[in-house]
Amino acid sequence: MTISVTITPDTLTACLAAVRARRPLVHNLTNAVVANFTANALLALGAAPAMVEGADEVSAFAAAADAVVVNLGMLTAARAGVMRQAVIAAAAAGKPWAVDPVGAGAIPARTAFARELCHLRPTAIRGNASEILGLVGEAGGGRGVDSGAASDAAIAAARNLAAMTGGIVAVTGAVDYIVDSTRCVALRNGHEMMTQVTGMGCAATAIVGACLSVSDDALLGVAHALAITGIAGEMAARVARGPGSLQVAYLDALAAPDPALLRAELPADGAAQRT
Amino acid sequence: MTISVTITPDTLTACLAAVRARRPLVHNLTNAVVANFTANALLALGAAPAMVEGADEVSAFAAAADAVVVNLGMLTAARAGVMRQAVIAAAAAGKPWAVDPVGAGAIPARTAFARELCHLRPTAIRGNASEILGLVGEAGGGRGVDSGAASDAAIAAARNLAAMTGGIVAVTGAVDYIVDSTRCVALRNGHEMMTQVTGMGCAATAIVGACLSVSDDALLGVAHALAITGIAGEMAARVARGPGSLQVAYLDALAAPDPALLRAELPADGAAQRT
Amino acid sequence: MTISVTITPDTLTACLAAVRARRPLVHNLTNAVVANFTANALLALGAAPAMVEGADEVSAFAAAADAVVVNLGMLTAARAGVMRQAVIAAAAAGKPWAVDPVGAGAIPARTAFARELCHLRPTAIRGNASEILGLVGEAGGGRGVDSGAASDAAIAAARNLAAMTGGIVAVTGAVDYIVDSTRCVALRNGHEMMTQVTGMGCAATAIVGACLSVSDDALLGVAHALAITGIAGEMAARVARGPGSLQVAYLDALAAPDPALLRAELPADGAAQRT
Repeated sequence: MTISVTITPDTLTACLAAVRARRPLVHNLTNAVVANFTANALLALGAAPAMVEGADEVSAFAAAADAVVVNLGMLTAARAGVMRQAVIAAAAAGKPWAVDPVGAGAIPARTAFARELCHLRPTAIRGNASEILGLVGEAGGGRGVDSGAASDAAIAAARNLAAMTGGIVAVTGAVDYIVDSTRCVALRNGHEMMTQVTGMGCAATAIVGACLSVSDDALLGVAHALAITGIAGEMAARVARGPGSLQVAYLDALAAPDPALLRAELPADGAAQRT
Repeated sequence: MTISVTITPDTLTACLAAVRARRPLVHNLTNAVVANFTANALLALGAAPAMVEGADEVSAFAAAADAVVVNLGMLTAARAGVMRQAVIAAAAAGKPWAVDPVGAGAIPARTAFARELCHLRPTAIRGNASEILGLVGEAGGGRGVDSGAASDAAIAAARNLAAMTGGIVAVTGAVDYIVDSTRCVALRNGHEMMTQVTGMGCAATAIVGACLSVSDDALLGVAHALAITGIAGEMAARVARGPGSLQVAYLDALAAPDPALLRAELPADGAAQRT
Repeated sequence: MTISVTITPDTLTACLAAVRARRPLVHNLTNAVVANFTANALLALGAAPAMVEGADEVSAFAAAADAVVVNLGMLTAARAGVMRQAVIAAAAAGKPWAVDPVGAGAIPARTAFARELCHLRPTAIRGNASEILGLVGEAGGGRGVDSGAASDAAIAAARNLAAMTGGIVAVTGAVDYIVDSTRCVALRNGHEMMTQVTGMGCAATAIVGACLSVSDDALLGVAHALAITGIAGEMAARVARGPGSLQVAYLDALAAPDPALLRAELPADGAAQRT
């Protein structure tokens, strides 16, 4: 049985206030395409980003950070090695850590490493439908780093993955589904134009890291993070003249997202039937 | 004898429509300075960027992509190795691939690798005058990554390079010349302020990759790509307050470039005499 | 005894004019988070950026550049190796070089390498208070890459470091202090919102490199560079709607900073007492 959970503007406001009060240090192992945007998204939100990836620095830094986020975009063997160090150190120190399985399902080496990370029991995984389907061995129609499926097609896969890892799995798309082994949150925030800006998903996963570090309930932490990014995207789309100005306005909006725009709801029937 | 070819707003519109309909997957092997801007330029245009560079991933990904673009900025031995893998895989799969020989002529190791790539017969090469002159062994006055010569000074070199590779060579500058062994297109779009934003040339080469993948005639594909980037730059310059807002407005303009602004023409007499 | 030195709108205007007339080639060894923003900041100012980091290219390029800037963010053993090559080549060629000791004091491996570079006598070092304190072995309360101390807490450390290196040391914060072994400049330009954009300090150090290359007195070169970045930040904050638009407006402002906004002054009494 699936228990539907909702978040509210009040819980969202409280999560944001906690991030700004504690200014969590989020250690990101990420790639050159999205590194600047990810750091700026965390700074705009009120968190403190760091991108330490030296082999002799990464373990101690990860253990001392408030959260670790690993992003598999542009993966190389060397970067996979430091990611492994970082998440093992974070787990040993009892810190939350999140995985963004960029390209899983579409790229075999990527899929294999993403599955290895899943076996280390990440606090949260956030991907598009193709990536989440790919992680559990189902064909998701992904090509490159884009999803070939709608997010609700991956709810059952997300549930299975959550049961395996004991953590939270989020499938993002037009609707975002955030699940653990028994609960589900659905969110309808966001804007189509966000798909024309690289790194929106990656920044969302970094913000998941920030919110996890201030949340007692990881499911709610992930849901608040994705609500914030979706709302910021909508606010940005209202003033943007195209994808360039959307990216800029998104960072402006993250510095002051409006919780009143939250569109959290019970998962659709279709979603509930699948779980 | 040189045959001058022109492109028109109609052929440009058709090329753009094809990119948006097919959403080609462009596999970029590029550097940390321009990776984000390159990905965003491709997304704004309507193509799908990917930056896979893991040694165990790159060949299969390149073969499956619609085009491969290699950019020699910030070259390292490791990155040269994966570029070699990628272009060999692309060529074997019959996919178009393009080279941006950043710094060729000015940096000896860069020049040597760029020439090695030319011997693998790229579908297209796009560089500034110093880079194209450097590739054929002529002094071009380049310093760092900037050109020390006007684009028409490199038309003969471009023609020779095109004859050697069997592909297209584009020399960009105040006027862009796009040549193969017998034909030439000249374009006068673009804006001076574009030289104050890093990665404009790199993004243009990425867009060359996207347009090649939807074009039967590679010369026209490259010409349409450079027309699009020049037009987008002009549209951006009209609303920009400086180079920061130019970069943003350029991405906005790529999402909807105006083919009516095209300034394609027969090459100037000087150009024709040189070829 | 400390000799206070001031810069004026006139000296600032002259420095800017020299950068634009000579267009110095600034060779940056930096990281993926800030590479694009750093290059764009230098271009907006009127300098020529390059980010060459291939092991077989870096020494010759550094020797030929007008200034070299090494930034320790995201340090890896490989990148430390090319940085060592670059600064040795720059020093041998008599070119100015600057260090941005990102994370020194907070990350042991980073601190050790930063100290090694200091022993090679950089022309200038620019860091926040925690980084400068960390370099001389004092606890600075830094966490990650942020400072845990106000800039005046590090003036004595900066003075000691300057005496050791024979160069300039700048501590930036709400007030910027620029010192050599006997002199001090204090600047009050800048805006709080700049701390919400990644790479502002890194871009400032790159601009330090550009200004050093056109200045006979290195102390004044560093002071002019930091005045320019602070003024540009203030100009940007006046039109920004948040950190995203601040970053864009900052680049616009660098293309035409207003020297009339300069707030240079004698160091505060507290500062003088510490030195």
